[in-house]
Amino acid sequence: MSSQSNQVQQASEAAGKSGRARMLISCPDRPGIVAAVSHFLHEHGANIVQSDQYTMDPEGGMFFIRFEFVLNDMDSELPVLVEDFARVADRFQMRWNIFRASRKKRLAIFVSKEDHCLLELLWQWQAGDLDAEIAMVISNHPDMRQLVESFGIPYHHIPVTADTKEEAERKQMEVVADKADLIVLARYMQIISPRFIEQFPNRIINIHHSFLPAFVGGKPYAQAYNRGVKIIGATAHYVTEELDGGPIIEQDVQRVSHRDNVENLKRIGRTIERVVLARAVKWHIEDRVLVHQNKTVVFN
Amino acid sequence: MSSQSNQVQQASEAAGKSGRARMLISCPDRPGIVAAVSHFLHEHGANIVQSDQYTMDPEGGMFFIRFEFVLNDMDSELPVLVEDFARVADRFQMRWNIFRASRKKRLAIFVSKEDHCLLELLWQWQAGDLDAEIAMVISNHPDMRQLVESFGIPYHHIPVTADTKEEAERKQMEVVADKADLIVLARYMQIISPRFIEQFPNRIINIHHSFLPAFVGGKPYAQAYNRGVKIIGATAHYVTEELDGGPIIEQDVQRVSHRDNVENLKRIGRTIERVVLARAVKWHIEDRVLVHQNKTVVFN
Amino acid sequence: MSSQSNQVQQASEAAGKSGRARMLISCPDRPGIVAAVSHFLHEHGANIVQSDQYTMDPEGGMFFIRFEFVLNDMDSELPVLVEDFARVADRFQMRWNIFRASRKKRLAIFVSKEDHCLLELLWQWQAGDLDAEIAMVISNHPDMRQLVESFGIPYHHIPVTADTKEEAERKQMEVVADKADLIVLARYMQIISPRFIEQFPNRIINIHHSFLPAFVGGKPYAQAYNRGVKIIGATAHYVTEELDGGPIIEQDVQRVSHRDNVENLKRIGRTIERVVLARAVKWHIEDRVLVHQNKTVVFN
Amino acid sequence: MSSQSNQVQQASEAAGKSGRARMLISCPDRPGIVAAVSHFLHEHGANIVQSDQYTMDPEGGMFFIRFEFVLNDMDSELPVLVEDFARVADRFQMRWNIFRASRKKRLAIFVSKEDHCLLELLWQWQAGDLDAEIAMVISNHPDMRQLVESFGIPYHHIPVTADTKEEAERKQMEVVADKADLIVLARYMQIISPRFIEQFPNRIINIHHSFLPAFVGGKPYAQAYNRGVKIIGATAHYVTEELDGGPIIEQDVQRVSHRDNVENLKRIGRTIERVVLARAVKWHIEDRVLVHQNKTVVFN
Repeated sequence: MSSQSNQVQQASEAAGKSGRARMLISCPDRPGIVAAVSHFLHEHGANIVQSDQYTMDPEGGMFFIRFEFVLNDMDSELPVLVEDFARVADRFQMRWNIFRASRKKRLAIFVSKEDHCLLELLWQWQAGDLDAEIAMVISNHPDMRQLVESFGIPYHHIPVTADTKEEAERKQMEVVADKADLIVLARYMQIISPRFIEQFPNRIINIHHSFLPAFVGGKPYAQAYNRGVKIIGATAHYVTEELDGGPIIEQDVQRVSHRDNVENLKRIGRTIERVVLARAVKWHIEDRVLVHQNKTVVFN
Repeated sequence: MSSQSNQVQQASEAAGKSGRARMLISCPDRPGIVAAVSHFLHEHGANIVQSDQYTMDPEGGMFFIRFEFVLNDMDSELPVLVEDFARVADRFQMRWNIFRASRKKRLAIFVSKEDHCLLELLWQWQAGDLDAEIAMVISNHPDMRQLVESFGIPYHHIPVTADTKEEAERKQMEVVADKADLIVLARYMQIISPRFIEQFPNRIINIHHSFLPAFVGGKPYAQAYNRGVKIIGATAHYVTEELDGGPIIEQDVQRVSHRDNVENLKRIGRTIERVVLARAVKWHIEDRVLVHQNKTVVFN
Repeated sequence: MSSQSNQVQQASEAAGKSGRARMLISCPDRPGIVAAVSHFLHEHGANIVQSDQYTMDPEGGMFFIRFEFVLNDMDSELPVLVEDFARVADRFQMRWNIFRASRKKRLAIFVSKEDHCLLELLWQWQAGDLDAEIAMVISNHPDMRQLVESFGIPYHHIPVTADTKEEAERKQMEVVADKADLIVLARYMQIISPRFIEQFPNRIINIHHSFLPAFVGGKPYAQAYNRGVKIIGATAHYVTEELDGGPIIEQDVQRVSHRDNVENLKRIGRTIERVVLARAVKWHIEDRVLVHQNKTVVFN
Repeated sequence: MSSQSNQVQQASEAAGKSGRARMLISCPDRPGIVAAVSHFLHEHGANIVQSDQYTMDPEGGMFFIRFEFVLNDMDSELPVLVEDFARVADRFQMRWNIFRASRKKRLAIFVSKEDHCLLELLWQWQAGDLDAEIAMVISNHPDMRQLVESFGIPYHHIPVTADTKEEAERKQMEVVADKADLIVLARYMQIISPRFIEQFPNRIINIHHSFLPAFVGGKPYAQAYNRGVKIIGATAHYVTEELDGGPIIEQDVQRVSHRDNVENLKRIGRTIERVVLARAVKWHIEDRVLVHQNKTVVFN
């Protein structure tokens, strides 16, 4: 989560006419938090339409809450609400964010040669199931330009080789700068550098093609086949410096058998990967995910 | 949900030293409910440790909320809190209940000849996973007396025949009167009369051995076999006058194939039935289930 | 399954160079069937690479078997094998079929306005996961012409109104005649007439958007919402004259909650529908499905 | 799998009146195996009621087959069949086994303090779902004696300490010698020595309380909690010298969320463990599992 000044700015930018906003809070647990925040929202004319709350431990743990509320005159009221909330937040040592629902998150989707995860996102987006703006697709291969541009989405082909890796990443960062709120690695087969990751803390989602932490690293389906597992899976997680070690957002699995060779596992896995990644992206853009100490709280 | 006077009484009865209580509310949605209730709880020294909320429709729908809170001196404070809450409840036209967590629900389990659902409940109870008191087991057969009594639980054998049905039910009602908060039909193969049902509104849980409403009525596994379904299931629901038509609390399923004959379906189904019934009972005794217009809201 | 003369013809038509073929047999069970058929195949130079077998009942039930075998010189050997097999088949009163794997089944996909099931089939087909030829797409709406033609697949827009229903179906039958081996109703929202159905016995696959037989007929997601089920599903089945009553090929489900309104159920359901239909089509075109008395045997 | 002489002996011992037998074969794949074996069985009066077959790779891979057949006069015919089969087996370099269905496998169940897996096995056995003889229960604790003996099953309390580990295992081996066909480690929290394992190759089944290979070693639920996985599981596998590394027989999983603390994961996990272990044991005693290079082929 970003700092408070960013939050004010973001929320202000997002302000338009009227509608819904979402508030995410994490703070040390102590009595009166729900009362204080809900009282505050009520006083500011906000009607809470959904709330989700989780306390790690009633005694001295962390407290997480998500409010979704309706404001009648959001353009003028939300900035006031955001400014005033600082006092409540200070009192409870809150890390917090307010997002206006109508301000769609802008996605930059990274792909390599496999298209299934990208296609799923495009379809769900086209069907209206993914409430985001797909700002661009970036690929180290030229293959999917036609497909992507047929959706009216800009396509940036930025080749990556062992020698040009650093230069390529610099270009990627230029292209996404100020244009993306969320990076989605839709089977992008390159490692992202720490420098890039720190630009998007908990805002890079990767799909890993195994049930993590079962098969960390490369060729997970081959690893799964060799181990003879009876169930395979996929994992969507935020990217951190530790390879395949970031906070898990969503996982799903499917039953397989001895009959399934590596090719079959890949084929079955593609459907799991697609669905898991799309769910994680959906929850992120609906502001349903909080991160605490390398784990997620998902209010879905 | 019972009337307010009952609630006061129940809550008062339940009061002991200190600990947790749960509050279930349903009312028409309008602005300020969360603020009013959480403010009220905070003022009365109650620290909210979990809250779950659901609005059917932001404009003019129903609103459901469950609070779990800690009170330091529950013996003296809860009665005051309950009494004072009447004013808040009136203002918002609430149907509400407060349950003290330490006051275990008393279960009367009805069985016929199949023991798997009963055994599951007994094991989970013995393992400490079912926070209830098993007040008695009632059966129209004598078979399970030894098993039940070995757990230190009273066993009432009340035979039922076509002729003695009414008389038998009168005896059942005598036995459970004032001794049970929840009736669990753990594969009890007799129809419960409307007279009995109205004594326990939304407090009789039945396990139906199909994925309702797929195979209403008798011999659901034979029906499932004949229809050639690829998945079978079980359904735990509150009992209403409509056969197999009450509010569904929980369902689960398992994949089957053409290889599974009726006997296999029954065998596979037993495991589903056990798990589904135990989950529904667990959620009920933890006050996680609200009923509205023949549907449940389950905060699990 | 078609008659023996058809089988000879089909198998002959399919013959090319060399490769795999699949044999599907159903017959009354009696000793020696596996021995007789596997001995026959071995004598004809066919190497069995997979066999699946199911006996409904060891005493006097039906027997189903699927052999997948490799023939070295299929062009010349398969016709001989097919011709010679008639004697074995007669002896055991077999209904049988032999399909050459390299002869791809030709699909005619029917759609209305919802595109998710069609898109899934197109994508799996393009990814090489669906070993078929998509001969055409037929729709009562013009909407998907561009999409379908971009895949190089002919698109037939045949409008259907209450008045023109019979005429429209006549056109459909003309268009598919001799050009399709399998009709796939990919959310085609029109009833198919018995006249059409009898042209494609067990060769029309429909996707129904409920866990049949739970919500037969129209608006199943609204029915599911009203009944308050905790799990929704989809069902792929062969079309028979009984509405939503044909042999079930595949079903799958997903957990939902009280939070999911009808729109959400539809959205969640779309993913289930896509996956279930694609699996059923895949199994059919790989000759893995046998039908007996309104039920399927699926060797997958 | 044991050598041929053992097979003859076992099969002979098992011979009684009449009934079913099961034949498990693994061998290098080449043309004519199914034909040869099914022809052989037919000639010996055996009627195949089920066959399952799997070829790892049509060209030069391994071939696995399971036949279930009925013999009319098993007492006199099975020994002949077994003896004669040696010639077929030699020709195809088969490793093979024939098991008479009526000869129930004898189980020795090892437990420590957690009783849920043992209870599940006892209950399924009592319900007739586990076609085995439970020869004994062995525990390093005295706690479950009464429970086990109430089922009429011998209970051996063999304490294990760091100092007495070797001695204790010697006693265990004495107790099970010639009395058990399968060892089931039903949450037995001690490491089995290589010396013990080699006495029961692929005949010791362990339940590991994680989705292997995700959380090898101790405290898997704590590991799962710390990693923040969204799904937990359990794994039944044959025990080899590599800790938690033996051939996987069965796995299953259940969805969890951030709300589930370690205690909850353990509670949810118990149900998965019970079900997974019971399935693995069931498949083993029905001779449905073949092992090849640390992986299983399960014909279920």
